[in-house]
Amino acid sequence: MSSAVERVIAGDVRTVARLIRDIDDRIPEVREVLKALYPHTGKAYVIGITGAPGVGKSTLVDQMVAHLRKKARTVGVLAVDPTSPFSGGAILGDRIRMQRHSLDEGVFIRSMATRGHFGGLTQSTRSAIDVLDAMGKDYIIVETVGVGQDEVDIVKSAQTTVIVVIPGMGDDIQAIKAGILEVGDIFVINKADREGADKTASELRQMIEMGHKKHEEGKWKPPILKAEAVFDKGVVELLEEIEKHRRYLQESKPGVALEKKRMRVMEELAEMIKNRLFQDVLDRLTESGDFDRAVDAIVSGQVDPYTACDDLLRSRLNLLK
Amino acid sequence: MSSAVERVIAGDVRTVARLIRDIDDRIPEVREVLKALYPHTGKAYVIGITGAPGVGKSTLVDQMVAHLRKKARTVGVLAVDPTSPFSGGAILGDRIRMQRHSLDEGVFIRSMATRGHFGGLTQSTRSAIDVLDAMGKDYIIVETVGVGQDEVDIVKSAQTTVIVVIPGMGDDIQAIKAGILEVGDIFVINKADREGADKTASELRQMIEMGHKKHEEGKWKPPILKAEAVFDKGVVELLEEIEKHRRYLQESKPGVALEKKRMRVMEELAEMIKNRLFQDVLDRLTESGDFDRAVDAIVSGQVDPYTACDDLLRSRLNLLK
Repeated sequence: MSSAVERVIAGDVRTVARLIRDIDDRIPEVREVLKALYPHTGKAYVIGITGAPGVGKSTLVDQMVAHLRKKARTVGVLAVDPTSPFSGGAILGDRIRMQRHSLDEGVFIRSMATRGHFGGLTQSTRSAIDVLDAMGKDYIIVETVGVGQDEVDIVKSAQTTVIVVIPGMGDDIQAIKAGILEVGDIFVINKADREGADKTASELRQMIEMGHKKHEEGKWKPPILKAEAVFDKGVVELLEEIEKHRRYLQESKPGVALEKKRMRVMEELAEMIKNRLFQDVLDRLTESGDFDRAVDAIVSGQVDPYTACDDLLRSRLNLLK
Repeated sequence: MSSAVERVIAGDVRTVARLIRDIDDRIPEVREVLKALYPHTGKAYVIGITGAPGVGKSTLVDQMVAHLRKKARTVGVLAVDPTSPFSGGAILGDRIRMQRHSLDEGVFIRSMATRGHFGGLTQSTRSAIDVLDAMGKDYIIVETVGVGQDEVDIVKSAQTTVIVVIPGMGDDIQAIKAGILEVGDIFVINKADREGADKTASELRQMIEMGHKKHEEGKWKPPILKAEAVFDKGVVELLEEIEKHRRYLQESKPGVALEKKRMRVMEELAEMIKNRLFQDVLDRLTESGDFDRAVDAIVSGQVDPYTACDDLLRSRLNLLK
């Protein structure tokens, strides 16, 4: 095991790829490797890129990688796809797109397949970030699709979160629904040559101002950029804003940065407890056959699921207070 | 409590509204009410409407409600908004949209606010469905935003799932990423007057055929409809397809329907165990101060989160095997 740890720290691509696959598959043994790698994390800068399908996130990430590489920065990319519950795997869209970086040793790209039916995506993505961090990548870009709770949780692991939209994706009410907007540090209107880009920009500006009512002195004001990622327009500007935000975070009062870190650790630990407990308990209930018996009893109408759940945890495992 | 149960079954709007708010707030006491209501569920037909922000889901739901009311069917609508992690609440977009139904006693509309930071959205939405079902609604429409894992889990509670897209939302690679496509029973291309509707339709058709390789005799083939919800175009056709799918489910071999129900119960019970356990354990760890101490130790670099998690569950609570 220690040699696996050493190989990750030395940047061995094959070991890293396998470790991330094991994380994705929820192999329990990876926990020991992750524990040993943890002291080697904390150096990478994590950027979250999020937005609905079709807004051009992958193209944008591809261009960002190209520019970061020109400056000799190493980059890890994690593309987080929601589970395809039937096929059990993600399709390799991002890898197809990012083919031009596939021979570059300074770039490591992976999709998180998230085969698990019962969540844990946030957890496994965080662990994968730790691995790329320990591997020595300067930047880790996490690309997430959509606006679900998982996505919101995942972007909390990023130091800078970029929200990508396209013109005309809906009126203000729809836009507000997205929820994730309030975690955005930078907004990008991609495909900005399309009709309605200015309208989208002014809607976004209004919403950001609404969310920043309690305006504090020196607080970060999320900029709104226009881009056409396909033509590499606006990408350099985006990277500059990311650096600005990074400096802002470094220069804010130490209390602010520490509190932010504390919040992140709280979220991460709670999520970890949840998944660890659940996996252990579900294993036990499945092995003993109690889970299947409870399902049968609910299906046949002998018991309601609320009572069945209580019974399993209280009588069978003696777990509840 | 028994009187609350009786009032829900009698269709008392105020009691139902309060119960759903309590579910949303994760008030432990609601569990007893839910247990008592469960035997009164199973009569409503649950329709899931899902798609990215801006595709016009709320408008479509609004029109569906109007048509169902013309046929004297009662309808419950649950709009599932992702948590807004900063403001702690959903914005009332759907209620604004659906104002015209607000004086109709046959319609009950609620947004799930999902204030909880640590998930449980799937669980609370399922419980809210049970409440509207016990209340006697003929149809329950669950509108979800985006394509995260939560969304996929929630639509599994629906008997018929409708996926809403708009023309030109992205090329095939992006579309495949959505993942949720494979759980769609009916596809609607809304805003079908826009350029590219035919292209989107043919892309969708290809993808559906890809996902249905193992083509079984008599298996449901997801139809692709065009609609302009704002002008009430295509809505009657959608409701007809939903009824067709409902008949298909009723007429399929009993083994198929039972297996589908069993799968749903399995998912629901597992999710319930996860949330129940987590809430209980986090309460205990927070009360004892162990959680905060672990967070401090991680923040100050004394321990990695993986080890801290193991310690909490093993040494403090003796919970792991």
